[in-house]
Amino acid sequence: MKIAIINGPNLNLLGKRQPEIYGGQSFEEYLSKLRASFSHLEISYFQSNIEGELVNALHQAAEDSDGIILNPAAFTHTSVALGDAVKSLNCPLIEVHISNIFQREEFRHFSYVSSGAKAVISGMGLRSYELALRYFLPA
Amino acid sequence: MKIAIINGPNLNLLGKRQPEIYGGQSFEEYLSKLRASFSHLEISYFQSNIEGELVNALHQAAEDSDGIILNPAAFTHTSVALGDAVKSLNCPLIEVHISNIFQREEFRHFSYVSSGAKAVISGMGLRSYELALRYFLPA
Amino acid sequence: MKIAIINGPNLNLLGKRQPEIYGGQSFEEYLSKLRASFSHLEISYFQSNIEGELVNALHQAAEDSDGIILNPAAFTHTSVALGDAVKSLNCPLIEVHISNIFQREEFRHFSYVSSGAKAVISGMGLRSYELALRYFLPA
Amino acid sequence: MKIAIINGPNLNLLGKRQPEIYGGQSFEEYLSKLRASFSHLEISYFQSNIEGELVNALHQAAEDSDGIILNPAAFTHTSVALGDAVKSLNCPLIEVHISNIFQREEFRHFSYVSSGAKAVISGMGLRSYELALRYFLPA
Amino acid sequence: MKIAIINGPNLNLLGKRQPEIYGGQSFEEYLSKLRASFSHLEISYFQSNIEGELVNALHQAAEDSDGIILNPAAFTHTSVALGDAVKSLNCPLIEVHISNIFQREEFRHFSYVSSGAKAVISGMGLRSYELALRYFLPA
Amino acid sequence: MKIAIINGPNLNLLGKRQPEIYGGQSFEEYLSKLRASFSHLEISYFQSNIEGELVNALHQAAEDSDGIILNPAAFTHTSVALGDAVKSLNCPLIEVHISNIFQREEFRHFSYVSSGAKAVISGMGLRSYELALRYFLPA
Amino acid sequence: MKIAIINGPNLNLLGKRQPEIYGGQSFEEYLSKLRASFSHLEISYFQSNIEGELVNALHQAAEDSDGIILNPAAFTHTSVALGDAVKSLNCPLIEVHISNIFQREEFRHFSYVSSGAKAVISGMGLRSYELALRYFLPA
Amino acid sequence: MKIAIINGPNLNLLGKRQPEIYGGQSFEEYLSKLRASFSHLEISYFQSNIEGELVNALHQAAEDSDGIILNPAAFTHTSVALGDAVKSLNCPLIEVHISNIFQREEFRHFSYVSSGAKAVISGMGLRSYELALRYFLPA
Amino acid sequence: MKIAIINGPNLNLLGKRQPEIYGGQSFEEYLSKLRASFSHLEISYFQSNIEGELVNALHQAAEDSDGIILNPAAFTHTSVALGDAVKSLNCPLIEVHISNIFQREEFRHFSYVSSGAKAVISGMGLRSYELALRYFLPA
Amino acid sequence: MKIAIINGPNLNLLGKRQPEIYGGQSFEEYLSKLRASFSHLEISYFQSNIEGELVNALHQAAEDSDGIILNPAAFTHTSVALGDAVKSLNCPLIEVHISNIFQREEFRHFSYVSSGAKAVISGMGLRSYELALRYFLPA
Amino acid sequence: MKIAIINGPNLNLLGKRQPEIYGGQSFEEYLSKLRASFSHLEISYFQSNIEGELVNALHQAAEDSDGIILNPAAFTHTSVALGDAVKSLNCPLIEVHISNIFQREEFRHFSYVSSGAKAVISGMGLRSYELALRYFLPA
Amino acid sequence: MKIAIINGPNLNLLGKRQPEIYGGQSFEEYLSKLRASFSHLEISYFQSNIEGELVNALHQAAEDSDGIILNPAAFTHTSVALGDAVKSLNCPLIEVHISNIFQREEFRHFSYVSSGAKAVISGMGLRSYELALRYFLPA
Repeated sequence: MKIAIINGPNLNLLGKRQPEIYGGQSFEEYLSKLRASFSHLEISYFQSNIEGELVNALHQAAEDSDGIILNPAAFTHTSVALGDAVKSLNCPLIEVHISNIFQREEFRHFSYVSSGAKAVISGMGLRSYELALRYFLPA
Repeated sequence: MKIAIINGPNLNLLGKRQPEIYGGQSFEEYLSKLRASFSHLEISYFQSNIEGELVNALHQAAEDSDGIILNPAAFTHTSVALGDAVKSLNCPLIEVHISNIFQREEFRHFSYVSSGAKAVISGMGLRSYELALRYFLPA
Repeated sequence: MKIAIINGPNLNLLGKRQPEIYGGQSFEEYLSKLRASFSHLEISYFQSNIEGELVNALHQAAEDSDGIILNPAAFTHTSVALGDAVKSLNCPLIEVHISNIFQREEFRHFSYVSSGAKAVISGMGLRSYELALRYFLPA
Repeated sequence: MKIAIINGPNLNLLGKRQPEIYGGQSFEEYLSKLRASFSHLEISYFQSNIEGELVNALHQAAEDSDGIILNPAAFTHTSVALGDAVKSLNCPLIEVHISNIFQREEFRHFSYVSSGAKAVISGMGLRSYELALRYFLPA
Repeated sequence: MKIAIINGPNLNLLGKRQPEIYGGQSFEEYLSKLRASFSHLEISYFQSNIEGELVNALHQAAEDSDGIILNPAAFTHTSVALGDAVKSLNCPLIEVHISNIFQREEFRHFSYVSSGAKAVISGMGLRSYELALRYFLPA
Repeated sequence: MKIAIINGPNLNLLGKRQPEIYGGQSFEEYLSKLRASFSHLEISYFQSNIEGELVNALHQAAEDSDGIILNPAAFTHTSVALGDAVKSLNCPLIEVHISNIFQREEFRHFSYVSSGAKAVISGMGLRSYELALRYFLPA
Repeated sequence: MKIAIINGPNLNLLGKRQPEIYGGQSFEEYLSKLRASFSHLEISYFQSNIEGELVNALHQAAEDSDGIILNPAAFTHTSVALGDAVKSLNCPLIEVHISNIFQREEFRHFSYVSSGAKAVISGMGLRSYELALRYFLPA
Repeated sequence: MKIAIINGPNLNLLGKRQPEIYGGQSFEEYLSKLRASFSHLEISYFQSNIEGELVNALHQAAEDSDGIILNPAAFTHTSVALGDAVKSLNCPLIEVHISNIFQREEFRHFSYVSSGAKAVISGMGLRSYELALRYFLPA
Repeated sequence: MKIAIINGPNLNLLGKRQPEIYGGQSFEEYLSKLRASFSHLEISYFQSNIEGELVNALHQAAEDSDGIILNPAAFTHTSVALGDAVKSLNCPLIEVHISNIFQREEFRHFSYVSSGAKAVISGMGLRSYELALRYFLPA
Repeated sequence: MKIAIINGPNLNLLGKRQPEIYGGQSFEEYLSKLRASFSHLEISYFQSNIEGELVNALHQAAEDSDGIILNPAAFTHTSVALGDAVKSLNCPLIEVHISNIFQREEFRHFSYVSSGAKAVISGMGLRSYELALRYFLPA
Repeated sequence: MKIAIINGPNLNLLGKRQPEIYGGQSFEEYLSKLRASFSHLEISYFQSNIEGELVNALHQAAEDSDGIILNPAAFTHTSVALGDAVKSLNCPLIEVHISNIFQREEFRHFSYVSSGAKAVISGMGLRSYELALRYFLPA
Repeated sequence: MKIAIINGPNLNLLGKRQPEIYGGQSFEEYLSKLRASFSHLEISYFQSNIEGELVNALHQAAEDSDGIILNPAAFTHTSVALGDAVKSLNCPLIEVHISNIFQREEFRHFSYVSSGAKAVISGMGLRSYELALRYFLPA
């Protein structure tokens, strides 16, 4: 089973900036652990700060994967283009957020992605990715 | 480790009405399976259609439990009282929703509970409870 | 044919307070007259000031009745829980209001119940109940 | 006793268009039945697609009738002129709607007429007219 | 000098209804006095409850008159068509209101006509027309 | 093939007023040219400043025509009645505007007609009608 | 008969700045002409850029005058204090504006003064004062 | 003289949770002191987390008491039912809040109770109750 | 202990205008009684209709007093300057209102002062000042 | 004559996804037909999912082309950058949409591009491009 | 070259209150340094807490100065009168703020002054004045 | 000392389009002059029309520079991603705008960047960059 993890803008800074909020671990380090724990899954990974490259990645993942985990980060709240891409998918997509976006500024409470997503997980730190992965396994 | 699951209004109808939306399984049936899968956890359960009884249940769970899973259902969007109770807790609380509330009416997009919750899971069906339970276990 | 009449908060004061607005007759007195006029109907009655007890009453009426007449009073404007309960019913429900809610404060112009109700009657005084009952009879 | 029934725009299409919504019966056919059932009432009827002709009809009915039943249709939501005319009446007016306007688009939830009407009946199909007529009879 | 006075919906009721608000004098009676006081002016008069007839009257007055006094009444707040007609005029137009519209419901505080009018007089009773006429005379 | 062109309020002024905006040609002159260019189409034409007459014209055109081109002008933004009439049609309707309504006042950006129209053309001057006609021809 | 004219902020600039808008005449020059035309009236005059001094002037005028003409200028839109002072008056007050405030920025469309004023005249240039004075004379 | 003190949801936690905000004293302890200081008053006390029980308590207090002190807590901002009950009272009611609700989240700035209350005291800690009691004594 | 009482605009009219609302007693008369009752307190008093003089008075009181009682009257709702001055104080300030501002126009429900005040008392008539004074005494 | 067609995000999926909405034809296939029909026009084509590349393409087209047809797709509603680029153009630009955006979600009703476009065509399917092309030809 | 610096309400407290925010230096001390650094400029200075005195100062400065630097402080967000005065100026005015107003409460994000100012500098501490002065020098 | 200047979308057109607004000088020409005037500073420069490339440039500048000057242009108003990147910086950033954004369309009055910026300069033309540079020098 192939799962694509796609991360949006500024998430390349994970582990480098604001470790008091996001922890001291880069996403790449966390990804290694995830792949070890879910060794029977084939997990691809893509990150970009460019909205259109994320749209491209979603189009590609729709060809190649059985499920998608998307953290749209700042684009969550502004990108109709990502929302449209998500709605055009054939495979299920889980939207994840590291922090609880409902505890942050009001403009972060709205997501253009959620209405096309299968489900949303918000606020579990990096474990949001792990639990999203489990969703693709049998209960 | 003790975990309290608390369900809000109309969730006593699960498995009885609108099975095309909520499935044909009652929450009690699902709970038996959850307890079997997580046999090392002590899982208590409470449901009420009365807002104040849910407030009472949260007060009690704060004394008795190490973690709480709350599906506030319709009160999600209207109950400052539940929101205040959640903010007064000492133990972590995960807010769960069976359906993806962001695909429903706009008034269901706001939650008085989320800003006090540790995390939110929305749209994974009954599996929302299972994944919330996993959050209380080591990664 | 069984019809359940369910009244919301503060309607236990009918006939006791503000008679210039609501008249000097209690709902129980009016109910006796209704039952006499519609003797071939079996009319049950429930009133509560507690939102969740009204939800419970709707769940019960859905089992026992062929039609429901609901005056949600103050909960009309605030209760998503009642609205959800109404949407889960199998039998038709008529929403009634004694006063014309559209002549009162703006927050009384919105109803969480109306979108799930079969029809709405507002402003006919106690006769709103009588006309709602007639709806359940042949034209 | 004289009752004027006044119908607003597009209601001349009743029975001709969208029978799945409005039924296959024209208002004229329905009116014959109403007159037969309420033979002791003198029921006049007027329909127009022109807002100002409806204002004129209300002015006239205020001279000629003991009660008015108005279905303002699309003008419900846009006509301050009709609302003003209703407020100037000396006889009681019941506002009726065939469909439940609270289940339709949000702009149909506001009525310029309701604050001047005695009462509002919405969603009972053509029976809304019958029940409004009954209001003018003794209970 | 030719001045057209144009009155909108329900103003045909002046002197007939709500005399406590609008006085007991019909507009025709008042007009006779106005014509007597301003005998060197040629004053035409038109009233309609039909928005489009008022648009037609404005088009016509623009051909025939040196100035226009318009009381758009209820159409003040809803008629883009009247507003457009006013903006297309070559001669000055004074918008008048008998009552002070800023003391009435909030929806009466906005006028589609004002932005195209030369000036606005609101709240001087029937004298609003007299003072508007004076505007067309030398100071 | 029969096409009905229906024009709303103030469009009778085309060629007479504000030629810097609307050009110096009346709609009748333009219509002659259109009929010459599209000689195999039977093009009817109706204009009114009265909303309800436009509703009547739409009802009639739905009986007589294969397609409708409607420029609702000022009624675009205020007429639920026209919107309802458009939704009841069996034949396709193209909404046209001479000027680009999105460059004008904000209240002109909303149309009650668009949600029932097949398509919208805005801002092409009188050519908006020509291109709408072409839509009814094979590509 | 004593009439107080009270002018608000920046009106001391009349005739000095932006003559293309406000003309080249100072208010004092205009006032001389007014006093000459209305020689049987005793007209007092006060101007200040300080809100509280205008409140004081209204309190004083209420003691000394039979009528007040107030141009609150910029304070029209922001001063609850002036609005309250106007509501406490025993004599009639006419609110005047030199320009048509409804043709200017949206924040100038609301007035805290209008709901307490007898009437409002807006957009007649300096003649707004003359017509307001006439209101205090017999028709 | 009989005074009823009625406390809303989560106030049973006073002295148990968040002592940095609410102090370390339970309401019962504070009540003993109040009763000692106001020994000539008969002070009853009721607390509930259930909205409808508070409505019932208000109905009862209206029978038994000369004055009511109500801290509606979270229901302040959401309960039309409590607001309606307050408006039906015959005796004066003082609304109190321990914290200054105007320094908290914006949704806490609106109260459904205030428009029916005699007066509001907000932000004096537990002393809000003492000062409200003094209101019932002669100055 | 020194307490400064500062009153905002139009409060110099107390006892002179609208006695049915504000009573027939001037503030100076009431102040004499307050000083007699609280003879161990040194109570200063200042009133102005000029916003900036009230700002100056707050700056001065912060130097001279142990506590401040401010009735900002109309400036409550419009003065960021007063709000800023209140936030810069070192001594506690109680905001008082004679009438219950929550029963008045909606624009009176917001206060720029409350978020910087220690507490708010609204609606107790002149007794609002007395109870605010008591706050500065031991319980 | 050179015309640039520029397509925004997700339009590379045309013919691949959701054929029930967008048809089974890719844009490239359609483009071949367009070029065949308009053989005397030189039609360039560019598509990107990246907002800034579309800005670049507009800058380039402004150098190279006599007219531009832009379907901004999802960026219609969010891109001030595209709107600014459109406003800086020297040649006319027609905004086109395949579906009628006024029948879709409310956030799709606003366009940052329209106020800078010459005209807008919405809802004619792929024929929107053909009709936009015709605009560049003589009538 | 003459430059007028004008400071609004509460800025007389600079260096006295909240030094952690505004520093420990009074504006007068800072002004001495500015005058020393810009010795070839003639810098006047005025501060008031009274809105109307600031309007007067702007009127005066327009007579006497070549440029104005205005820190409207709290009046930034509420004073239409200051905004109008700024718009009537003949010389350029730079609006400055010591703190970054966009990081503060939302009501501080809007300025009535900015639309009439040449430019705005916000957030550079006292250096905002220095950089504004530099603007009046050659680049 | 190293300073990075980063320019957003459409600013590559400076000097090429709309010279009446932006002048006839390209940013590169202006930059040469800036570097000459501030020869002791090391000034880097980057421009892109692609939002994500600007995010990348900010990430890079945070590594390489002592200060950043950002003109986010159209992205000011829409880019949460840029706002997030600005908030993650360790070095001070000055937001600049060539035109005074507060004099333009309302959607340009809000900035996602300002709340993370040290300061904002708006409306000084290209001199905005020069003054921002001076901020990084001693006063």
